[in-house]
Amino acid sequence: MIDLRSDTLTRPTDPMREAMARAEVGDDVYGEDPTVAALEERVAGMFGHEAALFTPTGSMANVLAVASVVSPGEEVLCESSAHIARAELGAHGAITGLTMRTWTKERGQVDLAAIEAMHAPDMGPFFVRTAAVSVENTHNFAGGAVLPIEDLRALRAWAGTNETKVHLDGARLWNAHVATGTPLLDYGRIADVLAVCLSKGLGAPIGSLMVGSADAVAEARVRRKRMGGGMRQVGVLAAAGAYALDHHVERLADDHAHARLLGEALGLDPEAVDTNIVVVERPDAMSFVERAATEGVRIAAVGPRAVRLVTHLDVSRSDAERAAVVLSRLAAR
Amino acid sequence: MIDLRSDTLTRPTDPMREAMARAEVGDDVYGEDPTVAALEERVAGMFGHEAALFTPTGSMANVLAVASVVSPGEEVLCESSAHIARAELGAHGAITGLTMRTWTKERGQVDLAAIEAMHAPDMGPFFVRTAAVSVENTHNFAGGAVLPIEDLRALRAWAGTNETKVHLDGARLWNAHVATGTPLLDYGRIADVLAVCLSKGLGAPIGSLMVGSADAVAEARVRRKRMGGGMRQVGVLAAAGAYALDHHVERLADDHAHARLLGEALGLDPEAVDTNIVVVERPDAMSFVERAATEGVRIAAVGPRAVRLVTHLDVSRSDAERAAVVLSRLAAR
Amino acid sequence: MIDLRSDTLTRPTDPMREAMARAEVGDDVYGEDPTVAALEERVAGMFGHEAALFTPTGSMANVLAVASVVSPGEEVLCESSAHIARAELGAHGAITGLTMRTWTKERGQVDLAAIEAMHAPDMGPFFVRTAAVSVENTHNFAGGAVLPIEDLRALRAWAGTNETKVHLDGARLWNAHVATGTPLLDYGRIADVLAVCLSKGLGAPIGSLMVGSADAVAEARVRRKRMGGGMRQVGVLAAAGAYALDHHVERLADDHAHARLLGEALGLDPEAVDTNIVVVERPDAMSFVERAATEGVRIAAVGPRAVRLVTHLDVSRSDAERAAVVLSRLAAR
Amino acid sequence: MIDLRSDTLTRPTDPMREAMARAEVGDDVYGEDPTVAALEERVAGMFGHEAALFTPTGSMANVLAVASVVSPGEEVLCESSAHIARAELGAHGAITGLTMRTWTKERGQVDLAAIEAMHAPDMGPFFVRTAAVSVENTHNFAGGAVLPIEDLRALRAWAGTNETKVHLDGARLWNAHVATGTPLLDYGRIADVLAVCLSKGLGAPIGSLMVGSADAVAEARVRRKRMGGGMRQVGVLAAAGAYALDHHVERLADDHAHARLLGEALGLDPEAVDTNIVVVERPDAMSFVERAATEGVRIAAVGPRAVRLVTHLDVSRSDAERAAVVLSRLAAR
Repeated sequence: MIDLRSDTLTRPTDPMREAMARAEVGDDVYGEDPTVAALEERVAGMFGHEAALFTPTGSMANVLAVASVVSPGEEVLCESSAHIARAELGAHGAITGLTMRTWTKERGQVDLAAIEAMHAPDMGPFFVRTAAVSVENTHNFAGGAVLPIEDLRALRAWAGTNETKVHLDGARLWNAHVATGTPLLDYGRIADVLAVCLSKGLGAPIGSLMVGSADAVAEARVRRKRMGGGMRQVGVLAAAGAYALDHHVERLADDHAHARLLGEALGLDPEAVDTNIVVVERPDAMSFVERAATEGVRIAAVGPRAVRLVTHLDVSRSDAERAAVVLSRLAAR
Repeated sequence: MIDLRSDTLTRPTDPMREAMARAEVGDDVYGEDPTVAALEERVAGMFGHEAALFTPTGSMANVLAVASVVSPGEEVLCESSAHIARAELGAHGAITGLTMRTWTKERGQVDLAAIEAMHAPDMGPFFVRTAAVSVENTHNFAGGAVLPIEDLRALRAWAGTNETKVHLDGARLWNAHVATGTPLLDYGRIADVLAVCLSKGLGAPIGSLMVGSADAVAEARVRRKRMGGGMRQVGVLAAAGAYALDHHVERLADDHAHARLLGEALGLDPEAVDTNIVVVERPDAMSFVERAATEGVRIAAVGPRAVRLVTHLDVSRSDAERAAVVLSRLAAR
Repeated sequence: MIDLRSDTLTRPTDPMREAMARAEVGDDVYGEDPTVAALEERVAGMFGHEAALFTPTGSMANVLAVASVVSPGEEVLCESSAHIARAELGAHGAITGLTMRTWTKERGQVDLAAIEAMHAPDMGPFFVRTAAVSVENTHNFAGGAVLPIEDLRALRAWAGTNETKVHLDGARLWNAHVATGTPLLDYGRIADVLAVCLSKGLGAPIGSLMVGSADAVAEARVRRKRMGGGMRQVGVLAAAGAYALDHHVERLADDHAHARLLGEALGLDPEAVDTNIVVVERPDAMSFVERAATEGVRIAAVGPRAVRLVTHLDVSRSDAERAAVVLSRLAAR
Repeated sequence: MIDLRSDTLTRPTDPMREAMARAEVGDDVYGEDPTVAALEERVAGMFGHEAALFTPTGSMANVLAVASVVSPGEEVLCESSAHIARAELGAHGAITGLTMRTWTKERGQVDLAAIEAMHAPDMGPFFVRTAAVSVENTHNFAGGAVLPIEDLRALRAWAGTNETKVHLDGARLWNAHVATGTPLLDYGRIADVLAVCLSKGLGAPIGSLMVGSADAVAEARVRRKRMGGGMRQVGVLAAAGAYALDHHVERLADDHAHARLLGEALGLDPEAVDTNIVVVERPDAMSFVERAATEGVRIAAVGPRAVRLVTHLDVSRSDAERAAVVLSRLAAR
């Protein structure tokens, strides 16, 4: 079975498991786990920020990151199909208590004109103030689309003169980095706070990080504890993350090549596949998914008229080629 | 001084004060205030709904109304300059814990295509479900714009087949009713739950109502108590509201005529003034407001490049004419 | 019918209604209602505090007051039958998000030894810190019991050396003041923040106030708006409150005398009736309440084995005497 | 260095790490991790409940467990030094929005008379209803005290006739089980919902479980996702937990023996040490802790006048004996 439903499905490799088994650990609630401390420092440094915080999930990293720049009664602006809006079970409202307003743009892109038009300055205590803009790169529900660094820089410049912070949901920022060659530090520069995941394309079993200023991370450490994310011997997970950073970043280029190959097999313009996610419109989405499964290829329906394929660490070149043959045959029927 | 800053500024008239002074009252927490009970029944009936609930403010009525159709972790869709999004201090997120996504349309109108595109069906427990669409009629920050009943009917029809509820923020629904002649019952039909205010154009000092099913209102009565809105001898306020419904609805037509007159004086197309609110772009908004004040006309800046005028019960024909003269002269400089 | 169920049942008198009808008003959201501003200043001054804030209910005043000294994730300590714990529908947890721990003491008294034993200092970010102690005077569910000023002073002294604030739920503080002769300023001194009601013994139809520092009140004004308590021409209500302060404070002594009379008729030690509330154990509470009603006296069951009688503005000396006759006869059966 | 600060400090053993490295895994958000599924089924069965849910921390397990029986606006009763009250950063109020009231009893015991006196039945929508009683066994801040099963059965019987649920915080329930011989099924019987930890005495690096009915667990699965606890290849952690259940339960008897040994060295009555926690009053707590550290024994101050010692997997018999010598010498000075 070739499983293309999601890149969250990756299983830790043997050497990654070995790294976990050898990890030096301590009680991270006491601040005594050297492996997670080193990982946090390393990831903070990769983005040129002061500090980072390990979390059990990307959702928690996003909630902590956004809460560090948006208080209850304030708002964050984001694209209408952003993961923080459509998924994460509404935690930003239900737990943080913030307000969200959205713009809509093809492929989940930044729309600075829309942001400027929506932006609510501090008009006194009775209005909701725009505290932050959130962007997602790559954009999951927009099919792994990359947000060009120029657009992010323009947003950063605008935000800087409008007392507004920028949150970057970088669950798949590694994919954007590899696809475009944009240095991670450049992404770090456009964001006040960001969240990155180790458990998607990078193949770690568990783990994400919130990245930001030392103050924001200290505050998030408390909020993480309140949300039930203050784990103990976290080194066993952080070791997997460190291994992933050492060995699984550059190889994302393979995932992207596999995705383009699958996109072409399904008749997509190769330009439409930015990274490792392929979304194809199929009026028969449900039955298409079922037929693919009977032929050994698992894909996902994302709505009644669209299917999604995601390449990842556990999908080899030959897997991708085989899936392409199967899917193009089914699509041609 | 002619005060055109807001229709919330109206002061109770002498006969309204008399009605308040004569009101029969009881303890409404015990359900024993006959005046508020009668008002609630009357207003529910005006919209063809089962029940209504008196609240100290329109904000509370909106929070209770939306919470009756959207749970924490679910979402409401609304236009991006809706009062529930931009004002009310973010209570829908901070107190109810819901998620909000927005579309943007000129004059705050319904955009059914955008709503359909954003609508998130129940995709299992990990996604935010679209529980309701909220519309505001007339639309405050869009300059008192009316939402045509045809658009509301189309929304209603769509919502009915998509397991989605409709919330109507009717703080100034009376103005829409008088401006278009659309019966209140017709507005009641397009909404699962609505909020209406007595303290804006209608001139009551305090009071709004949430209107909906008997079950929704019973639940809202509990939430109202938790929010600190369970007042005692409410009849003194409800009497003012009843008086306003008897005497101040039809006269809103005067406010609308005055607003058109002011709009024309400021060079607006009369078609751009739907009801009692006039928004005019002025690059010199702040100083324009100050100059008007020195000439006896108070208006409000709504952003750095726009001013707002609102007509109401305490602005007579001659006030409006005098203000028109002053403002057109200032605008011509 | 003589109604002894609660002192919230009082109806505004004719001169109070006249004061309301004559009240000078403005839009309090704009800070322009002179009557409520004067009342707020007056009440703040009565307790020697900097500022006060009018609210639609005592519950909202308490929620705002406690929230001004206890943040989410911090705790307030109070007696286990305190109104903030047992009533107010859990708003302190559900809206403010704080933690509560309780001690239990006969007649709802302060138990400084218990408070000291429970007090949690700031032990780092992972423990709940005791931010405040809340006391209720008079204590509603403890039968209108007075908390002696000496005990409150001892609490104040302890709190001052333990970085802990004191909240005083003074819904019926006027009764304690009249019953003991303790000056209101003395009560003001023992509290960092307090809440007082105009709509209970004082007989105003609606209205309470939170009293505290200028900063706390400014912050509470924003929270009040978020909770839906930012009313408009509040002067119509504030005028009733001002009238009540002028005319209905000293007369509470009559209510207390009537309550003692009723207590004696039911076999209570007169010492057990501190103010205007009488709680009597009756194994047949429900049927006792029903029998009293058939004889023209309405009282309330508070639990299966206790009944409660409350005297107030609408219960005259002869009402109290008549009720005493009825109830002592029923009790003797 | 012998580290007696907490049993959360245990590091995974080599065979436990091997079990983790070999674990079969899948994506648990998709319900496809066989190792965590097996662990959840196993733990549910150990307590005779229908289902269980793996969580990253004991705090999250407790929040989910209590939230499954207490809604916002309802209350849970617990002992005043319970972990859910004093620790967990106030999540039960801040995230769940519930109310808490507490009784105080020596050694954190159940006080059924206090519970009965505090219990608030459903008195209509304006009062806080007692939805659950929470008990902690063993009781952390009461020095690892055991709650006798007879007391828990009496609570269960009372709760059953009073429409009240029982939550058992069983972070260290394994210790109670081993210390008393009470079967785990018996503990399961007295609770509607419980939380147990794998990362304290049992020595797993990360992991706890909420245990309850299938419905409660299904609902908690959604809440876990909202709180950011929906991890992916959880099998790597669950394998450690399964290993701990296989190999580290019975050996808790050693920890208990070591704790008694330490308690005696510090002059405690052996009866005062129920399990693996020793709390000793020391007027010089802070300096005592420091002096112990210089002699190679790390212990914790829990307040200014008490120190705490906790035995665990990484403290051998000879460690305990050595620490006893050091501490008794220091205590004698």
